[in-house]
Amino acid sequence: MSLIVQKFGGSSVKNAERILHVAETIAKTYWAGNNVIVVLSAQGDTTDELIDKAEEINPHPSKREMDMLLSTGEQISVALCAMALETLHIPCVSLAAWQVGIQSTSVHSAARIKRIDSERIRSELDQRRVVLVTGFQGVDRNGDVTTLGRGGSDTSAVALAAVFHADLCQIFTDVDGVYTTDPRIVPNARKLDEITYDEMLELASQGAQVLHNRSVELAKKFHVNLEVVSSLEDKPGTKVKEVTKVEKTNIAGVAKDTSIARVALVGLQHNPGVAFQVFDLLSRNNINVDVILQSIGRDETKDITFTVHKKDMEEAERILNDHKSALKFDHIEMDDKIGKVSIVGMGLMSNCGVAAKMFEALYEAGINIQMINTSEIRVSVLLDESDVNKAVKAIHDKFFDDI
Amino acid sequence: MSLIVQKFGGSSVKNAERILHVAETIAKTYWAGNNVIVVLSAQGDTTDELIDKAEEINPHPSKREMDMLLSTGEQISVALCAMALETLHIPCVSLAAWQVGIQSTSVHSAARIKRIDSERIRSELDQRRVVLVTGFQGVDRNGDVTTLGRGGSDTSAVALAAVFHADLCQIFTDVDGVYTTDPRIVPNARKLDEITYDEMLELASQGAQVLHNRSVELAKKFHVNLEVVSSLEDKPGTKVKEVTKVEKTNIAGVAKDTSIARVALVGLQHNPGVAFQVFDLLSRNNINVDVILQSIGRDETKDITFTVHKKDMEEAERILNDHKSALKFDHIEMDDKIGKVSIVGMGLMSNCGVAAKMFEALYEAGINIQMINTSEIRVSVLLDESDVNKAVKAIHDKFFDDI
Repeated sequence: MSLIVQKFGGSSVKNAERILHVAETIAKTYWAGNNVIVVLSAQGDTTDELIDKAEEINPHPSKREMDMLLSTGEQISVALCAMALETLHIPCVSLAAWQVGIQSTSVHSAARIKRIDSERIRSELDQRRVVLVTGFQGVDRNGDVTTLGRGGSDTSAVALAAVFHADLCQIFTDVDGVYTTDPRIVPNARKLDEITYDEMLELASQGAQVLHNRSVELAKKFHVNLEVVSSLEDKPGTKVKEVTKVEKTNIAGVAKDTSIARVALVGLQHNPGVAFQVFDLLSRNNINVDVILQSIGRDETKDITFTVHKKDMEEAERILNDHKSALKFDHIEMDDKIGKVSIVGMGLMSNCGVAAKMFEALYEAGINIQMINTSEIRVSVLLDESDVNKAVKAIHDKFFDDI
Repeated sequence: MSLIVQKFGGSSVKNAERILHVAETIAKTYWAGNNVIVVLSAQGDTTDELIDKAEEINPHPSKREMDMLLSTGEQISVALCAMALETLHIPCVSLAAWQVGIQSTSVHSAARIKRIDSERIRSELDQRRVVLVTGFQGVDRNGDVTTLGRGGSDTSAVALAAVFHADLCQIFTDVDGVYTTDPRIVPNARKLDEITYDEMLELASQGAQVLHNRSVELAKKFHVNLEVVSSLEDKPGTKVKEVTKVEKTNIAGVAKDTSIARVALVGLQHNPGVAFQVFDLLSRNNINVDVILQSIGRDETKDITFTVHKKDMEEAERILNDHKSALKFDHIEMDDKIGKVSIVGMGLMSNCGVAAKMFEALYEAGINIQMINTSEIRVSVLLDESDVNKAVKAIHDKFFDDI
């Protein structure tokens, strides 16, 4: 008998009709003879409604109480989905994270799973019950409720799959798999049958919304067989695994991210360790920095340019200006009208032709590149925001239209 | 330092404005130097909204999953109220029943509290934190969430007051205390400064909505000082205690209940144990029976008349008719256009004049009595539903206008 973990996101359970559809999907898997652990997110707008309720009372509530509030959302989902399974006469039980024993760190709103007790779920599975678990949440060693932050339900699903050595972990989404790029921008984007963990990680980090990178990291670490599959249609999705077919030579996909802003510290003195000081300061203020570029200036100064999330841009400016005298820079330049386009593929950087092909596509389309950043399996370029969609299309056409 | 338990119902926390008002009430008690445990119900319509969501998916969900669903309501309340206290800089922590360790029986939707662990709350109180606890719910020995049924939050509050030997347990309601009768019917109804547990119990059982009788029973058993007090105005409420002033000679109040229906089994054979069979049958089908009257018929038969909740009338008829051949009766008569009016007071039945005075008031008002039922401290009469309000007014005037 196989064990399958199935995770459904907020839009998949947004109303009674969708929940009943999810129940049918689960029932099919169960009737096929599998044991099933289901992980659910909060219903569509529930989280936003709860946040609105909180803000009306306290615009800056403690994260501990916010987690207590928001964690009700997934509990509502699992109870309702259990009721839907009951109509199909599927034996089932809904469990909140504290009932399962999903032990996490105490960092409210961004906790990490430390351990999952297996006893309760094992006993329910042994009775051939479908177990519905609240995603996105845990309980810390004080017995307080935590939430796992963005993409948390994917992480819950993968962690459960790892602990129970599930044969498959299916992530159901509104799309039917991982695409070579966003089909809304490039109509002839292709669905990938397979993708490696590393490629998926880079795509996720570079703006592809399908899977959150923490869940992919975890899947890679524990060799969890992941599948991204449609919650609307019954057809094969995209398998995420260690290695894919050896004959694959092309890139896996093209991703874009327009949520970033560029910040430049201009006229920095050449004092040693200034880069460390800058990024340590930002990190201690919970500002994540992505692409970093340091240039050597003409005179005694240099510039450091980096990207942050758009929402963090002004906060970053404020913090840096507060430390202007210590950091010794001339002024700050900022631009939030930029975007990033990336290509991802195994062995990409060991094949010089690939990056060149990307730049060629951009040149032919008349698009100016502001910054370039690379990893072993990724090439990213920063562009003017208005050029992003055109760039995605040009690059995708270049790589996928001639094969 | 005193410990005070304060319970607020669903209408007291129905929106942001009311929650902020509740927080101010708690803050005053805290700033006066008291330790405070707060028990909250779900917000106004939350429970109904959750039931609607469930019914859309499954008209007959299991009670286990219904409890899992509904228990989110109180968790939302305690988290929001904690956020409101945070705006007043009151140290506080919200706790769900499972975090407190409110151990209950496993009877979903009607569980009873068995034990409350004191450790977590004690540790929070020692740090001078206000502790906000979800009312209405518990956790059974399997770690499953239960709900306590009607009036459950009052019971949670009294149980916590008992376990922690609170100096006072305040039940905040939309009225400002216990009245001699419903002020909406009799404008000159008087607020009682004090009432005994037994009188409160009879009033609660006889339709006064202020306190649920399970909570009053528990308060009596553990000598909890109860106070019913207004959540809207800052003034003294009604104290519920073991004995009240000895000089009190009058009745405590007049209650009415129009939610009942009368069922009569007519032409029963004189076989022994038939009453047991009838009421055992109803009890096993979860139908509560109130007033029972058995009359000796003219010939070889007798009649048994009893009252049930209006919503149970047709179910009772169906069940009894299913067993007609075993029970050996002629036919069933039913009437759901009836009501019950009761007077309650310590030592009432040891003073013959009191019951007579009640009947006199009804006679003078031209009201016909269908059935009479008495306890040590209560006299109830069954009347035509249309006479109920007139009867309450006539009786109240008789007892309270001449003193």
